[in-house]
Amino acid sequence: MNSWLRNPAAALCVQSRELAFERQQQLTKPPGSLGRLEQLAIDFAGFQKTPTPELKYPVIRVFAADHGVVAEGVSAFPQEVTAQMIYNFVGGGAAITVLAKQHGADFAVINLGTVEPLGEMPKLVNIQIATGTENFCQGAAMSSEQMAVALEAGRNSCADQPVDCFIGGEMGIGNTTSAAAIFCALLGADVDDIVGRGTGVDDAGLQRKREAVQRGLDLHIDADTSHEEILRCLGGFEIAALVGAYIGHAQRGVPSLVDGYISTAAALLACRICPGVADWLLFSHCSAESAHALVLNAMQAQPLVNLDMRLGEGSGAGVALSLIQSSLLLHSKMATFAEAGVSES
Amino acid sequence: MNSWLRNPAAALCVQSRELAFERQQQLTKPPGSLGRLEQLAIDFAGFQKTPTPELKYPVIRVFAADHGVVAEGVSAFPQEVTAQMIYNFVGGGAAITVLAKQHGADFAVINLGTVEPLGEMPKLVNIQIATGTENFCQGAAMSSEQMAVALEAGRNSCADQPVDCFIGGEMGIGNTTSAAAIFCALLGADVDDIVGRGTGVDDAGLQRKREAVQRGLDLHIDADTSHEEILRCLGGFEIAALVGAYIGHAQRGVPSLVDGYISTAAALLACRICPGVADWLLFSHCSAESAHALVLNAMQAQPLVNLDMRLGEGSGAGVALSLIQSSLLLHSKMATFAEAGVSES
Repeated sequence: MNSWLRNPAAALCVQSRELAFERQQQLTKPPGSLGRLEQLAIDFAGFQKTPTPELKYPVIRVFAADHGVVAEGVSAFPQEVTAQMIYNFVGGGAAITVLAKQHGADFAVINLGTVEPLGEMPKLVNIQIATGTENFCQGAAMSSEQMAVALEAGRNSCADQPVDCFIGGEMGIGNTTSAAAIFCALLGADVDDIVGRGTGVDDAGLQRKREAVQRGLDLHIDADTSHEEILRCLGGFEIAALVGAYIGHAQRGVPSLVDGYISTAAALLACRICPGVADWLLFSHCSAESAHALVLNAMQAQPLVNLDMRLGEGSGAGVALSLIQSSLLLHSKMATFAEAGVSES
Repeated sequence: MNSWLRNPAAALCVQSRELAFERQQQLTKPPGSLGRLEQLAIDFAGFQKTPTPELKYPVIRVFAADHGVVAEGVSAFPQEVTAQMIYNFVGGGAAITVLAKQHGADFAVINLGTVEPLGEMPKLVNIQIATGTENFCQGAAMSSEQMAVALEAGRNSCADQPVDCFIGGEMGIGNTTSAAAIFCALLGADVDDIVGRGTGVDDAGLQRKREAVQRGLDLHIDADTSHEEILRCLGGFEIAALVGAYIGHAQRGVPSLVDGYISTAAALLACRICPGVADWLLFSHCSAESAHALVLNAMQAQPLVNLDMRLGEGSGAGVALSLIQSSLLLHSKMATFAEAGVSES
């Protein structure tokens, strides 16, 4: 089960990266003066195996599920909000839906298990694994079979269509608690440094959240716990789906633009399980959720923007997508010094 | 002459800002979770006097001119590049032209005085004040009459059309030297802290650039030098046009999205001459030009992105424009908790 997770990521095209680098030196600007936008274009050349990559098919998938650990009083919002927000996503009223429309991105929501099962709706895929995960303070969040379904759901979330940049979003009341537990388990970090206020829990709620994470770690984690077991015991269905999506897309040769705190927990797990995935991840933003900067630093990840966002859903990545579009348009549409008849330095 | 510079800036609509703030609290997200994008929408509500502002008419004007101080050997590029790049702007091959097309912005170049006079071309306005400024190491960069023409050119650069966000770019070989001199004069900062490598001057060129700025300051500036005299003695025609544009648009009730190092010199001058202008300026990015972060900090300006760009032309603002579009779309298109039937915390 899940042996595909350890298949290697696709290879980057070194020659296309080199040709893209050379092109950047010839464009009508001082070399290096477009900063990180130059490197983004070179990265996409390596992804797409062409010196002049394009962004034509951005795809956004929001994975949603409920979390048993909510019973510990870790969230500022009631659990019913997960299902309500799924309806809001497909109804067009949520932040990520607005951003998907702005950028012409293909959009769908994949429900992996809400407390209240959902009806059929356009743009909604129902894969109701269970009515949420189990409370990880009392047992493993999910079974091996459940995890396998969630991983596959991520892997196959846009399998039969062209994708040149994948954004995975998430929705699940309680999922910053799950993400924090994963970070603590993977990084050996202190609970107090990693657990934040999520959607805006008060001081008492923050204390409950810290205690819940610590109990989960005490119950499930020791030095020998595997990465997959960390995901199974402490994760959520939507986090497992993100792990499957990041790994599956890297194997297929599709880059992913990682969103915020929860997505980064999935990204870190994906890189630990299948190290080549790291080459296929771009980090969109630094969340205002307190520990995100710390975690990004530990991963040597440089996010594109820092706008004090902390919404999730894929919204930070949705905002940063336009910078990738700018990067690739500049790279392919700017004239060279020779074409424009401009003198070089 | 230029008495219009001290007319007050338009008033922000406080009521629309308050209504926009209230709307942000009702949208389907934890309050504050869209971070700086929320504040941008509130700012635009105040600019446009409506609780649901829109970005429909972004306008980009690139002001270009040559600089006499280039005779001191301060630039890595030959002076002919100013005119060559103007042709590249209107020909579609420059970074700012590509970004203008990406965002559907109205675009034109205003030539205020190149060493080689230019022909007539679409999207090019020729206001050839002189064949560049004088060398400020030997005398004032421009006369009072020349400065008045440049200021008016900026003020009137998009006078007869709708504008809801103005971006002013600049092109002029040598103009980081002029901008550095203006910063030193206005901030009382040390030349070594402010002068950077611009388009990429080598160590010897950097030393010549520092010496040129110091000679300009010694020749023209003392504690009593007025802001307009600083501009006249040390500025460029394109910098004067940007000052006129920032002030004129603030008086007209149009916000400006400020670009990088040179634009910020014009923005600082505009705020010193007409303090109400500060309310109408947004800062797009922090340039890799060494002193820009220092200057932004002195102005208490928080740029939207930091992508290590240092190209000028308005390119940093052109990239950041999409964040304003995201902010306003999220603000107006997201559903409220009541509309979406989502429970609040």
